[in-house]
Amino acid sequence: MNLHGLSLIGAGAGKTGGATFQGFDPARGVAIEPDFHGANAAEIERAVQLAAAAAPAWARLPGAARHKFMRVIADKLEANSAVLAERASRETGLPPARCTGEITRTAGQLRLYGSAAERGDWLDARIETADPARKPLPKPDHRSMLRAIGPVVVFGSSNFPFAYSVAGGDTASAFAAGCPVIVKAHPAHPGTGELVGLLIVEAVKECGLPEGTFSLLFDAGFEVGQALVKHPLVKAVGFTGSLRGGRALVDLAAARPEPIPVYAEMGSTNPVFILPGALPEKSAMIVEGLHASATVGVGQFCTNPGIVVLERSPAAEAFLKTLAAKLAATSSGAMLTKGIKQAFSRGTGARAKAAGVKVIAQAPEGDGAAAAPIWFETDAGNFMRDHALSEEIFGPSAIVAWCRDRAEMHDVARHLEGTLTATLHLGASDGAGAGELIEILAAKAGRLIMNGYPTGLEVSDAIVHSGPYPATSDGGRSTSVGTRALNRWARWVCYQNFPDDLLPPELQEKNPLGLRRLVNGETRS
Amino acid sequence: MNLHGLSLIGAGAGKTGGATFQGFDPARGVAIEPDFHGANAAEIERAVQLAAAAAPAWARLPGAARHKFMRVIADKLEANSAVLAERASRETGLPPARCTGEITRTAGQLRLYGSAAERGDWLDARIETADPARKPLPKPDHRSMLRAIGPVVVFGSSNFPFAYSVAGGDTASAFAAGCPVIVKAHPAHPGTGELVGLLIVEAVKECGLPEGTFSLLFDAGFEVGQALVKHPLVKAVGFTGSLRGGRALVDLAAARPEPIPVYAEMGSTNPVFILPGALPEKSAMIVEGLHASATVGVGQFCTNPGIVVLERSPAAEAFLKTLAAKLAATSSGAMLTKGIKQAFSRGTGARAKAAGVKVIAQAPEGDGAAAAPIWFETDAGNFMRDHALSEEIFGPSAIVAWCRDRAEMHDVARHLEGTLTATLHLGASDGAGAGELIEILAAKAGRLIMNGYPTGLEVSDAIVHSGPYPATSDGGRSTSVGTRALNRWARWVCYQNFPDDLLPPELQEKNPLGLRRLVNGETRS
Repeated sequence: MNLHGLSLIGAGAGKTGGATFQGFDPARGVAIEPDFHGANAAEIERAVQLAAAAAPAWARLPGAARHKFMRVIADKLEANSAVLAERASRETGLPPARCTGEITRTAGQLRLYGSAAERGDWLDARIETADPARKPLPKPDHRSMLRAIGPVVVFGSSNFPFAYSVAGGDTASAFAAGCPVIVKAHPAHPGTGELVGLLIVEAVKECGLPEGTFSLLFDAGFEVGQALVKHPLVKAVGFTGSLRGGRALVDLAAARPEPIPVYAEMGSTNPVFILPGALPEKSAMIVEGLHASATVGVGQFCTNPGIVVLERSPAAEAFLKTLAAKLAATSSGAMLTKGIKQAFSRGTGARAKAAGVKVIAQAPEGDGAAAAPIWFETDAGNFMRDHALSEEIFGPSAIVAWCRDRAEMHDVARHLEGTLTATLHLGASDGAGAGELIEILAAKAGRLIMNGYPTGLEVSDAIVHSGPYPATSDGGRSTSVGTRALNRWARWVCYQNFPDDLLPPELQEKNPLGLRRLVNGETRS
Repeated sequence: MNLHGLSLIGAGAGKTGGATFQGFDPARGVAIEPDFHGANAAEIERAVQLAAAAAPAWARLPGAARHKFMRVIADKLEANSAVLAERASRETGLPPARCTGEITRTAGQLRLYGSAAERGDWLDARIETADPARKPLPKPDHRSMLRAIGPVVVFGSSNFPFAYSVAGGDTASAFAAGCPVIVKAHPAHPGTGELVGLLIVEAVKECGLPEGTFSLLFDAGFEVGQALVKHPLVKAVGFTGSLRGGRALVDLAAARPEPIPVYAEMGSTNPVFILPGALPEKSAMIVEGLHASATVGVGQFCTNPGIVVLERSPAAEAFLKTLAAKLAATSSGAMLTKGIKQAFSRGTGARAKAAGVKVIAQAPEGDGAAAAPIWFETDAGNFMRDHALSEEIFGPSAIVAWCRDRAEMHDVARHLEGTLTATLHLGASDGAGAGELIEILAAKAGRLIMNGYPTGLEVSDAIVHSGPYPATSDGGRSTSVGTRALNRWARWVCYQNFPDDLLPPELQEKNPLGLRRLVNGETRS
């Protein structure tokens, strides 16, 4: 597979001539060939027009055909795993094994969401049959389900070069829902993006789908992304990244003449509440588990634990001392980009100087893009007074908030902003009194974890990767991971008194696709 | 039941002293006692604080308890139907029988949404059980469902004093979802609003619910509504009304530090496409049906047909001539408010002067707030050139777009903005060729009606009252009518590895509430 450094506009390629940029190896501190050429206005327009032209065919494409297409992409990802992982590892500094694992997960997501598309349960098909004899008015026949929303723009993330990038969760769920996709490639791993994009273009051809099914646009800056979000034919946006970047897109989309949804997953502080009963039972286990969760991938996960809440006690102080020693002994690792490393240094530098805050662990930092754990502590009162202390620092850093008692722990929980996850460690004696804290946290987080750690995410029917703002832009009403992610790319359509042959097959009387449907209030399949 | 003209702040009443306004009888042109006092800032704050304090209890309130509360409200509405209908009829100019019928519908909605709350299927509860032996990593136990979003603000509509006002669809679905509600009463029928509000306050007391369950705030202007939408403790907004009013609230909510969803249903043009084959078969029936749909309630429905698309032919011209004669012979009726009448006069006056537009039917207008049908025609090319011609005029007016051929009819369909409904009339010969038009319209409307009329709305599991912008603010991803309306007021929460006794009952292993749940990919109940 050769890289050309050009956007993929349907079946064609973008032109050279615009501003160029290159990939960068953060571990070695060197740029990587070739040059990548930013998409120009005509290329953006053509990509969107192709997607809009493909949208009606995609809206009618049977779930089985979407599933097949997605299986073909998944197979190609796995067949090319070595070359993909090699490029991604160089462009991101992530270990090759992590990249290979992420490719497996990405292929799994494509297959899972594709099978959900084929099964069709997510459509929530419902039928109320007519009753012409009803008084005072006859009852009409109503049949409704979700239908694809139209062209979707996906912004690839920096920290998952596969699972949340070109063929990642947003793209996979949009395809599964029946939408063409235009990806704005993340400039931190353009070669990985092009390699994956080329495989999708191959799959489009092999499956005989319209070329507007997929385009991939490059840009080192913000112009291409902004133009896509503002384009009248674009109907929804998926984004994984920073709060600042996500909010900018949300605001842009909200200001359109026709506002469109932006599903932005923008990061999270992932608080961990350790109740007093947990420490005598499993202090050493929590040190191990929390250390691993806080340092894996140089802390560059949206589920990285960023706030730890403890009740002050000798046991808790001993626990933290052990954890701090382990953190201070952790080796540094290259962050994804120089920009991310700089932001990490700025964030931790400011926090170290904040009033009432003390550094409790600081591992030796390496050169260049390398970063190492740095943890802080403060008392709960100070934590709640200084809003900056409860904001995310992306990377291997967390702050411990010391509470006087359980009531103050609840105050801290109430004070928190929306987050993707919240974790509780309970001992046997803590369970009975934990109900209130659990309810407070259920109003703050999309996923509550009992006696575990926030990193690591199961891609399944039941998972929720979401949360109130600022964790996500839509307040946790959707999820970006799991089969419920399909629902983001669809809207409700109801057919009243339609003859059977003019209905979509999903709603026809004989249920030719064998969907699970709600018929006059009863589930049938 | 005595009116006090004061806001209902939980179990207490607002104060006198602020700006006052009165109801107005549009049919007789006279103001109606008593004075209503706008809520002041302290009252707004107290209403929101009470709602926020009630939210945790409401989020845990079992579906059966919510159902019971809603049945109590429904019973009270029906028991007081005569006095409610009398006041509403005076305040709106709507006939008493229409008001009585709307009370029945409103009670029915409360019971239907309450029963959906008790059944709990809408929660989409899902369970993936643990597999500790899974390689390479053990599989955790995940259990997830929708949970209530928190305090909801509802803006009552002008045109449905019951079904989309104080105890209307937004309030009912928010209660059913487990949310406290603050209603901003519509100033066009304040007495009706207070009477209904008093019944809800009685129900809150009788059911032993927290007083923050419900508040009702008065204001003749915009200040109270804006303050509610901007309040940090408010988590979602429901609105039924004009595009201008809805968009203002949407923009306000999007600009908050924490953006919140506004579900605004903002009106609609409800195009009717009559294909050539339909006319020889049932021209007279369509004249009757379309006339009735276009004039019922003085055209003051969001589903009123506002655009009729016809292929030019002698049969079509004869059809329209008959329809126009019938429209011109229609008696006038009082509109809901003087303001609505003035907007109707402005809108139809401007359209009558638009280039290429001809008045084809104009019934004699009555005095004061009275309005009568006025219809227009133009050719499809002109219709597509002048955007104002495809905008809604609220009231008994429509424009006919004449097309040269089927291709131009498709162009008109593609040109339309989002709408709540789109209607097709087909003859036996039209069916085979209708697929493309149906697909175009499915991308534009929330409900497609075959050989029927857009007014009249079934409240059921399968109904969709929604559509792409500007019909609704969220692009048709939710519905404001039907049991799916509950989903608007909730967000996803997932519990990982929780002990059974700390889970909400909906997710406990033994399924104590008997919900339909998805367990390891299989539906069980």
